This record gives sequence, C-alpha cells and structure tokens, in this order.
Amino acid sequence: MERYDVAIIGTGPAGLEAAITATLRNKKVLLIGPDELSTKLLKAKRIDNYLGLPQISGEELAKKFLEHLKSLNIEITKDRITSIYAMGNYFALQGSPEIYEASTIILATGVVPGKMIPGESEHLGMGVSHCATCDAALYRQKDVIVIGYGKQEEAEVTFLSEIAQSVAYFPQYKTDFTTQGNITVYHEKPVSIETEDFLMQLKTEDNTYSAQGIFVLREAIPANQLLMGLETEGPHVLVDRNMTTNIPACFACGDITGKPYQYIKSAGEGNIAALSAVNYLDKNSEQPL
Amino acid sequence: MERYDVAIIGTGPAGLEAAITATLRNKKVLLIGPDELSTKLLKAKRIDNYLGLPQISGEELAKKFLEHLKSLNIEITKDRITSIYAMGNYFALQGSPEIYEASTIILATGVVPGKMIPGESEHLGMGVSHCATCDAALYRQKDVIVIGYGKQEEAEVTFLSEIAQSVAYFPQYKTDFTTQGNITVYHEKPVSIETEDFLMQLKTEDNTYSAQGIFVLREAIPANQLLMGLETEGPHVLVDRNMTTNIPACFACGDITGKPYQYIKSAGEGNIAALSAVNYLDKNSEQPL
Repeated sequence: MERYDVAIIGTGPAGLEAAITATLRNKKVLLIGPDELSTKLLKAKRIDNYLGLPQISGEELAKKFLEHLKSLNIEITKDRITSIYAMGNYFALQGSPEIYEASTIILATGVVPGKMIPGESEHLGMGVSHCATCDAALYRQKDVIVIGYGKQEEAEVTFLSEIAQSVAYFPQYKTDFTTQGNITVYHEKPVSIETEDFLMQLKTEDNTYSAQGIFVLREAIPANQLLMGLETEGPHVLVDRNMTTNIPACFACGDITGKPYQYIKSAGEGNIAALSAVNYLDKNSEQPL
Repeated sequence: MERYDVAIIGTGPAGLEAAITATLRNKKVLLIGPDELSTKLLKAKRIDNYLGLPQISGEELAKKFLEHLKSLNIEITKDRITSIYAMGNYFALQGSPEIYEASTIILATGVVPGKMIPGESEHLGMGVSHCATCDAALYRQKDVIVIGYGKQEEAEVTFLSEIAQSVAYFPQYKTDFTTQGNITVYHEKPVSIETEDFLMQLKTEDNTYSAQGIFVLREAIPANQLLMGLETEGPHVLVDRNMTTNIPACFACGDITGKPYQYIKSAGEGNIAALSAVNYLDKNSEQPL
C-alpha cells in the first residue's frame, strides 16, 4: 500500500495550510476531507480579520484557498476518516471504504458542533457507532436508528438500508429526504440514548424508539474517539506550541486545538503543524549507509 | 496622557493582525513601528505558503497588508520603543521622544538579526546604550561611539553629534553617509566591547577605539532588555498557547516568540495575542456601579 509522509485530516484553513507547507517541503501529502471545504467557512457572511484579504465572504475566501491548492497541484481526497490506528512506525486511517497509510498525521478536523447526545459516549462500540462503513455489517437484517447532522449522511443512510432490515432516520438539519423503502424519516430531536432489554433506545422529545444499533453521524468525530489514547480536554486535543500531541508523529491544528476559533489562527497553526511533521520525518528517516 | 487599551509594538504580520483584531473588537489601539513594515517581508522575493495569496512577493503582500489597515482606518505610529515600564495597572512605553501609555501591550518586534556584540550585554546601562534619545544627555561634551545596523540610525547619529563632543560612527550596512562635522565614519566590524581605565573600548578587526559611551542601535531591541523581568529563552520571549508572557497584561506574537519564522504563523499568533489582550481588558475593566 502507498505510504504517505503526511496525512492531513480536515480541509478547513488549518488542514489546507498544512498541506501547502508540507507539499512545498517536498513531502508526499494526503489531504482528506470534504472538497467543499469547511461548512463553517462557507457560511461565513463576512470575514474582516484575515490579514491581507479584507472584507471577504467565506465563499470568496474558500475560492481563494482552492485556487492556492490548485496552483500547487494539491488534490483533496474526498473521504471521511472514522478511525486512526497507531501501528508503530506508521498510522492506518480508516476511510469509507478506503484505508490509507501515513508516517505522520495532522488532525485538523475542527470541533464537533454541539454536544454529544447524553448516553452516546457511554455506549460507543456497544450499540452506538460513528461509522456506517465500518459497522454496517454488524447489523445485517437488523433494525438500526441513524441520527445525521448533515446532508452528506444521506448516502450513508441509503447504504445502511441495503444491509439492515430497517432504518429509522432522524435528520438534524433541513432536508427534503423522505421516507422510502425500508427507511422511515422522523423529524424529532434526540434527547438521550439508553439500553433496555438488550436493545438500544433513542428517546426524543416526543417518543422512544428501539433498535439493535444506533448510528450517530457527524461531519467531525470527537478527537479522542478518532485515535485511541489521544489526550484531550473537552472537545480539544492537547498540543504544545509546536502543535505536537501526546502521541508521537501525530500533530493537530486549527479549532480542534482550542479557541479562538479564527481562520487566520487556524492557518497559522497549520503551518506550524506541517513544519513539525517535516522535522519529525527528517529526524526519523532512515540514514543512508 | 491618552491611555490606550492595547499598544502593539511591531509592524510585521503579527503586529498588523493583532491591530486589526483588537480594532474590530472596539479597543483603542496604538500600533507602533516602521510604516514601511517589516524589512524582512519587503525583501522576500516570493512567498508560496500564505494561504489564500499564492505566489506573492513580499512587496505585494505588504501592500495588501497596508490596504487592510487602511480599510479599517488603522494608522501606524512611526516610532521606536526602546524601553517599557510596568507601572502597576498600565505600561509606559519610551519612544523617541514620545512616551505612550497603554493598559496592555503586545510585543511583535521580531527577532534581533544576528548576535549581540561580545561585551554588549554585560555593559548595558554601564557605558553601553541602545537608545540615543534616552541617554544622549549623559554624554554632553563627551566622546561617543555609535554602531548602527540600518540607515534609519543615521538620524540618531546626527542627533548625538549635536550633544556629544565627537561621534565615531560604525555603520554595519551599505551607506554613503560620510564623515562630517564632529562625526567620523569608520567601515569596520565590531569584535568586542570592553572597559579600560574608566573608558569604553570598542575593538574592531583592525583597531581599538575609546570613548565615554557606546551606542548600539538596531531595528529591534532584545526583548528582555525592552521590558524588565520578561522571561526569555535565547532571543525568544516565552509564551503559552494564548500568547501570554510571564508579565500580566503583556502578550507576544510572531518571530519574537520562536520558530518557525513564517508570515502566516505570525499573523495567526497576532490574532490570538489580540484576543487574549481583549479578554484581559474585559476581565479587568472596572465594573459599573
């Protein structure tokens, strides 16, 4: 399998700047994330403090970022990483369905918007899953509940419906996606996840639903669930001023490392994280005989 | 005297971004430094990794930065701060010759290029000075030596020549500034500063020169000499991830806080430093009765 020097997860300003800097330093870079870039950025009406680009809309800024990538022939691999495994001297990254390998990783996935559902974290891996691709097979001919936080999850719902017996889908955003085949759509807000008689239960404001499994699908996966053993504080990965995490060869940058949530701060940290990864690679590369 | 909320010292990317962010947060900002911005930036042939502005020359980037300042009516106060005094609940900043007051300060002066002259640091305040405006009066009708690292120091040399009996000027850059009046120009490289028989001695590669005082004039003053008690490590100010120094209400950003020396990293840190200063001001402002 192809082994990248640096895998960068996330296509907000932090991930993009990291990809640019690592590419300019002649590293083999894998940049993974949505190719429409950060949803938050696209929705920004006007950004006044990105030095050098005054009074710019999020959409225009995203366009400039994409032009910058293009000028350096950097491509975005449109995938979502649901788990990362430290394999000793490299990392394996679980995409959907691809698996990737890289010597160093840079986490730039942003912060998970909103809070976890009460009971979600406690039941993770025990009836609750964050990854349809990874865990669908566990629910062949069974009933599943899916809570989705973005339009991109609808493809996952369809995929699950091909394997599971039934899918109850709870979109948490505006959509015209409707009940179809074995998929039933409910417009209700989750309140908690519990277990009852070996079944998973989703309580909403109005009702209680039961199934064998519950999938909670978000754009970003909480960092400490992405990579085992990663030190976090609330939703943030702990890093030092070099953007080094507690796991060797794993760096982080942007909103995931904490406030302020600002584009220029994220870009600056992306630059530092990339140079730290480059330093790590240079120090740990095999010496010529 | 006018009391600023935030005084930002330095007009590189870190200082400019800090000024923009603090201004947008409605703080009364003083931005001090050369109005031609950072010499290093202007000299940069091509910058490839300032996200959003691909393949740009330092000169073009500086122009964009100045346009950004202009769009927010932020002005640069063209002055050089030679000392900062912590006065309890505010700082006094010694300019040439103005004195300024501010509730918080952000150090963004970059790193001092090159090394100190051997003996310089040891004799600082005891025959060696970094500030003509501050210390000229001590050398009325005496002989002084001036070592200057940039064309802007020539005005200081002229000023000193009006007070001192004689000035021996050692420019460390290309110049057509010549011997005139009581100023003698020597094109020699300093090797060390020593004392001998109550006189200061400058040893060059070729000769030894004596005088009552030696002025060493650089674009940036070492951070730990700018503000007493500031914790530094080599040429860098120690900061945490909020760009907080060991001195309350004093923040730092950009090259002065350490490597990598990169424009986007500096801008990102300027943003963080400004928001930390804003937080500090909001927390420490007097509450309405």
